Amino acid sequence: MTGKYPQALEELMELLRGLPGVGRRSAERMALSLFAWDGEKLEALSENLRTLKQRVRKCPQCGNLAGDDTEDGLCMICISPVRDASVVCVVEEATQIRSIEASGVFKGLYHVLGGRIAPLEGKGIESIDVDGLEKRIAGGGIREIILALSPDVEGQATAIYLANRLKFPELKISRLAQGLPAGSDLSYADPATIAAAVSGRTRFD
Amino acid sequence: MTGKYPQALEELMELLRGLPGVGRRSAERMALSLFAWDGEKLEALSENLRTLKQRVRKCPQCGNLAGDDTEDGLCMICISPVRDASVVCVVEEATQIRSIEASGVFKGLYHVLGGRIAPLEGKGIESIDVDGLEKRIAGGGIREIILALSPDVEGQATAIYLANRLKFPELKISRLAQGLPAGSDLSYADPATIAAAVSGRTRFD
Repeated sequence: MTGKYPQALEELMELLRGLPGVGRRSAERMALSLFAWDGEKLEALSENLRTLKQRVRKCPQCGNLAGDDTEDGLCMICISPVRDASVVCVVEEATQIRSIEASGVFKGLYHVLGGRIAPLEGKGIESIDVDGLEKRIAGGGIREIILALSPDVEGQATAIYLANRLKFPELKISRLAQGLPAGSDLSYADPATIAAAVSGRTRFD
Repeated sequence: MTGKYPQALEELMELLRGLPGVGRRSAERMALSLFAWDGEKLEALSENLRTLKQRVRKCPQCGNLAGDDTEDGLCMICISPVRDASVVCVVEEATQIRSIEASGVFKGLYHVLGGRIAPLEGKGIESIDVDGLEKRIAGGGIREIILALSPDVEGQATAIYLANRLKFPELKISRLAQGLPAGSDLSYADPATIAAAVSGRTRFD
């Protein structure tokens, strides 16, 4: 026998190991658990995976994840009548929108770049959706762009590139503040974070 | 919007939460990771889940997991010409066969009960496959039955029930030794394990 389990289970384990945080042991537990599911639930999962790419799309305006049930395929944020369409927050990945939404502080729209400039990984400007962003701004109605990129080398390089390229009259370009994370202990902050917090210090009043 | 993600993703997360050790956060990570898989891999997983119950069956002789590719649907252990068919190790679940095989010490066949007697959970004798085991023994050729049940109250009660019921002339019935786990530290052993190790002590020679 090649594996310790019937071939279908071995194949399933191999596939499950492609998931984040799933190693050999947990893939085994999951595969055996899936085998013990009733047929109906197993079929539901199979069907969901089979149709996932058709049922979840990219919002044609902002690149956010969108269902297949809205007008023009727009995402729930782009179609919302209560969001402020004059402020656009630029993120690297659609999944980061969720983190910003969780803070509850931003009420504008988003734009997903689909990555960031990372020359060492061979990812140049063509790998991110700057054209789409430029067209949106050129279309009018946007007064501020917030560059919500990661505070690391590639993220900041991407932010600088975008800030230089998006030269529109009257357009305000901002980026997220850097400093100490809320609720953190100063003793554990790394030197770069402290440096950012000191140079970006705000008036106490 | 009802959920934070398109409905198909929310459904997927709900399904993934049915897996062992998968909570809200990891279901979210997994669902987003699955969405990022290429279509071919996603289709392979979907297809595997759809056909899993057909491709993996119970071995009609011992109840072990079996593929759909062997003669009579027997498992790899039952069809092996090198295993000793005169010794049958009785386990609660098919997945426990794997643990015993990993020890490399047992070369006989197995019998899966499909559970154990647990009156408090409403699981009586009818919930386990004693009839099949009895028929196998009555069929001849088996000289020893090893009761490899869990060393807890239900497991031991099931073992005692089986030992009393399986009254065949010339049939030896044994059970797994209880004592200290190999490689363990005596200081951390629980009192019940120490009691079992003392009363089951073996001659030092």
